[in-house]
Formats: sequence, C-alpha cells, structure tokens
Amino acid sequence: MTAEPLFGRLALIGFGLIGGSIARAARMRGVVGEIVATARSAKTRARVMELGIVDRVVDTNAEATDGADLVILCVPVGACGSVAQQIAPHLKRGAIVSDVGSVKGAVVRDIAPHLPAEVHFVPAHPVAGTEHSGPDSGFAELFINRWCILTPPDGTDAAAVDRLRAFWTAIGARVEIMTPKHHDLVLAITSHLPHLIAYTIVGTADELGEVTSSEVMKFSAGGFRDFTRIAASDPTMWRDVFLTNKDAVLEMLGTFNEDLSKLTRAMRRGDGEALFEHFTRTRAIRRGIVEIGQDSAAPDFGRLQTDVQKT
Amino acid sequence: MTAEPLFGRLALIGFGLIGGSIARAARMRGVVGEIVATARSAKTRARVMELGIVDRVVDTNAEATDGADLVILCVPVGACGSVAQQIAPHLKRGAIVSDVGSVKGAVVRDIAPHLPAEVHFVPAHPVAGTEHSGPDSGFAELFINRWCILTPPDGTDAAAVDRLRAFWTAIGARVEIMTPKHHDLVLAITSHLPHLIAYTIVGTADELGEVTSSEVMKFSAGGFRDFTRIAASDPTMWRDVFLTNKDAVLEMLGTFNEDLSKLTRAMRRGDGEALFEHFTRTRAIRRGIVEIGQDSAAPDFGRLQTDVQKT
Repeated sequence: MTAEPLFGRLALIGFGLIGGSIARAARMRGVVGEIVATARSAKTRARVMELGIVDRVVDTNAEATDGADLVILCVPVGACGSVAQQIAPHLKRGAIVSDVGSVKGAVVRDIAPHLPAEVHFVPAHPVAGTEHSGPDSGFAELFINRWCILTPPDGTDAAAVDRLRAFWTAIGARVEIMTPKHHDLVLAITSHLPHLIAYTIVGTADELGEVTSSEVMKFSAGGFRDFTRIAASDPTMWRDVFLTNKDAVLEMLGTFNEDLSKLTRAMRRGDGEALFEHFTRTRAIRRGIVEIGQDSAAPDFGRLQTDVQKT
Repeated sequence: MTAEPLFGRLALIGFGLIGGSIARAARMRGVVGEIVATARSAKTRARVMELGIVDRVVDTNAEATDGADLVILCVPVGACGSVAQQIAPHLKRGAIVSDVGSVKGAVVRDIAPHLPAEVHFVPAHPVAGTEHSGPDSGFAELFINRWCILTPPDGTDAAAVDRLRAFWTAIGARVEIMTPKHHDLVLAITSHLPHLIAYTIVGTADELGEVTSSEVMKFSAGGFRDFTRIAASDPTMWRDVFLTNKDAVLEMLGTFNEDLSKLTRAMRRGDGEALFEHFTRTRAIRRGIVEIGQDSAAPDFGRLQTDVQKT
C-alpha cells in the first residue's frame, strides 16, 4: 500500500495478540522494510519462526533492538521498565521507542528514565483486542477503525510523533493524542472498570451454593456469557493494569458504586419510574457507539449468525 | 418439518422480539395450523399485518384467545396479570396457556388465579434474545440451541407439559424443567444481575465530568461497548424484571458486592498474586460455555469479521 516503507527496520519485543497483529498488519501493508521479533519464552520464539510472518526471530531484547528504527514493546505493562533498561544501550541514534500498554502514566514513569537522549519516546495504546492471547491469536485486521492513543511527553520531537502516527494510520487505526493522566482516566472507565466488574461477576457465579456452575453455563445466554468473554482476557496483562492504574480505577469504581446503590434503592423501593428513566437513557450511548462505527449494528454483535451456521 | 401441526391454532398476545420470533419459527417449521396475533398498540398490529407472517391480526386479547389451542403471553411480566384476567373468559376448554417472561414466581402468582380449571397453565421462559425490540426485531433462528425453561406448578397435566416441550423443541430450543423459585435464582445471576450492572456502568460513564461522552464512545472497544449492548435492552421489560424478581437479585447483588470488595482490596494492597489467581479461574467458565455451545468460539464473538466487512 505504502510506496516506500515508513521505517527501515521494526523491532517487536513481545509477540502476543498485539505484537502478532502489528507484525501481520505491517507486513501485509508493506509499512516497514524488515521485521525483527523476539519474545521472552523460547516456545513463543519457536512458534513465531514457524508462523513465518517476520523476517527474523532473535533470542534477546538487545539483539532485536540493534539497528532498529522503530522499537515497540508489546509486553505487559509491568515488564516495560526492565525491558527498557535492557534495550537502552542498544538503541540506534534517532530511533523511536514505543509501546502498546493499556496504562500510560506508569509506563512513561518506568520507561523514560532508562532511555538515552538521542532516541524519541512516543508511548502508544491501540484500543483493540480480543479475549485470546499468544502468538497465534493476532490478525492483520485487528486495528482497522480502532483508535490508537499516543501520549508523547512534553517536548517530544513532533516529527517522531508524526512518523508513529503515520505507522498506526497505515495499519488501519485512527490516532488521537492526549496526556498520560487523561488517557488513564478515560481507559479506567472504558476498559479497566468493565474488566474488573466482569472478572468479579464471573467469579461470583462460579462460587454460588444454590446455583451450580453447570446451570450458570447452560443459561448464560441471558446476558452473563457476554461478561465471560471479557473475563477470559489475559491474566498477566490485567493483573498489571490493575496494579499500575489503581488510582483512576478506584476513582471510577467509587462513582460506579454510588450509581449501583441508587439503582438498587430504586429496585428495593419499587420505583419503576426511576428504573425506566435510567434504562431509557443508557440506550442512547449504545446508538452513539454504533453510529461512530465502534461496534456492529447487527443484533447480538452479529454472533447469532455464527451460532446458526454451526447447527 | 413436522408431519402434522402440534397445535391447531396458536395465539400470540404481544408481538415484540420474542412473540415475533415465535411466529416466524413456528410458521417456518410448520408447527401450528394457524397463527393469530395481537398487540396492545395499533401501530404494532398494523406492522404485523404488513409483515404478513401470521394468518390473522386481531384487535383484542379476547378475540385472539377465542378458539386457540395454545395461547402464549409475550408481554412484559408486569402486564401478565391483567392480560390473564382479560383472556380467562375466552379460553377454550383444554387449551394450554403459557408465557415467555424472564421472571417466573411473580408471573405464576399473577396469572394462575385468573385461569379457569379446565385449561392447562405451563409457564415458560426461553433464555434467548438480542438488544433489539419491536415487531421487526424477531427472527426464526432465535431459539436454536438456546434453553427454554418450563416451570409447571405442582399437579400440572403431564401431557400438557409434554406438548409445550414438543412445541419449543420443534422451533429449535432445548427444554429444562424447574421450580419457579429456582428459575428466578438461576436467572438472577445469569441474566438479571448482569443487566443491572451493565445498566449501572453505562449510566456512570454517561455522567462523568472529567471524561466526555464522546471519549467514552470513541474508546469503547476496550471492553465498555460490550456492556452497552446489554444496557440497550427494552426498558419496560427490564423495569418489570427488577420490580418482580427483587429478592433474588438483591441476594446475588449482595454476594457480588462482597466479591467486588475483595478484588478492590487486592488491587489497593497491590496483591498481584490474588488478582492473577482470580483472573485465571474465570477463564475456565468461558471455556465451559463455548464447549457446551452457548457461545461462539470466534474471537470477540466473531464481530471483528463484521467490522472488517464494513471497511
């Protein structure tokens, strides 16, 4: 698609759902000259080699970094600091260092101090994903129409920001820029709190005495099954998100708990009018999300068709 | 599909997502000889007439009931009592009366006292649906592989239960029998509490000062958008569910709140091990649901394919 590659060599450190999707998309669209990948486990590295979707698989983060023009850390946010420390001495002058972490304040705090002055640090977060993880879970279309948020620290070279924006745009994403602090607040409500709640209720359902797990699974089409998809997300990634974006999540959780108390009170008092008013208001947000193309307009996410095909 | 129709005449009282799906499925599979439908609003009745998927559309519940062998109330649970009162004098001797309500205790309490002794009352709840409502939202495949729960009161004629089971089986559903009390407890966790929580968090996100609604919608692919689908369900139906299954929902909510406190405490204390252990356990339930065919194994409910097709 691109006449000339935007970057000569791309290094991907970590090869899960996001790293693997970047590799596939960047190759398909001809966005980079060469892709070098590495991963912590030998098993993942062997699998990436087998998949044949990158030019080279190397054993260490240092090796991957040598000579790369764009280095993207695709590891859980809790691992970013130590990876930054390892790659720092190997970074090429003028290289761009980025990441894909779901938390930005902690990542900037952990990565920035290790980087030499002559590289550009442009943190990024593609708001996209599925409940699957590992090197086989990625696919080239993951970022299409999804937003990628960049949070460059004050004073970051504008040209470097533009180049990273061009990279994400080339693999299908739309780009927005904000501060790490604001990013962490926005994501606390659009992603982190929903995950915390989904993880909670799925755990609750699993431990009831009066209703068996088998019943919970059989009758999950009443709404519960939607929560189980989110609660099947990668445990390491999500542990790190909650440890590093604690303050913003606690703030949103406080508001959520107040709102839940209000609805509970309406239910307890038999206040049908309050319930009806609330349930009508929430419909509008769904319509807005479908209108701006951030979700499918098909009933039930379109999954009914899939079910029917299986029968 | 069926050699001979299971029922001569089916009356559908109410024609939303469920009534409309029953009509389409019953006709497609040849399960009944004739379908008569009615709805409270003249607009809905006119639309059903236009759709041409039933044999006759009549103006009153009484007229729909006259001569019907199976009468299914497809109205919000709060309306069941008054509908039962209206149809009672018109019920044919030996007819089966059923419903599709998401709450069974209150429905049995509201309907049963009005029915004459010579009809069979077999309450039912098909655990299936989408976020859409109204006469156009139904489709013949809605019940395929979904469970329909029957809650016949003690002493119900076994042959009547068998006939209703055959009806639901013929339109694709699997049938389970339980008491109204147990049904209401099971659905409180698999459907009602998930809806209450989804309605809450979507409301919370809509009223934040620091994060705009526009940001919430744009970055909703991080998990939030899944909740908006559930929170777009029919407000009247859900108001009635919470008013009539209050006790069971409050019981489940109590356990949920305790579990949310535990996870919050782990987050606040930085207890990564507790978070990781919890997030690993919840993955198993998802796998179970996919294995028994109650959800799609495709990543992201298979909706990514839909997104990609649109681009």
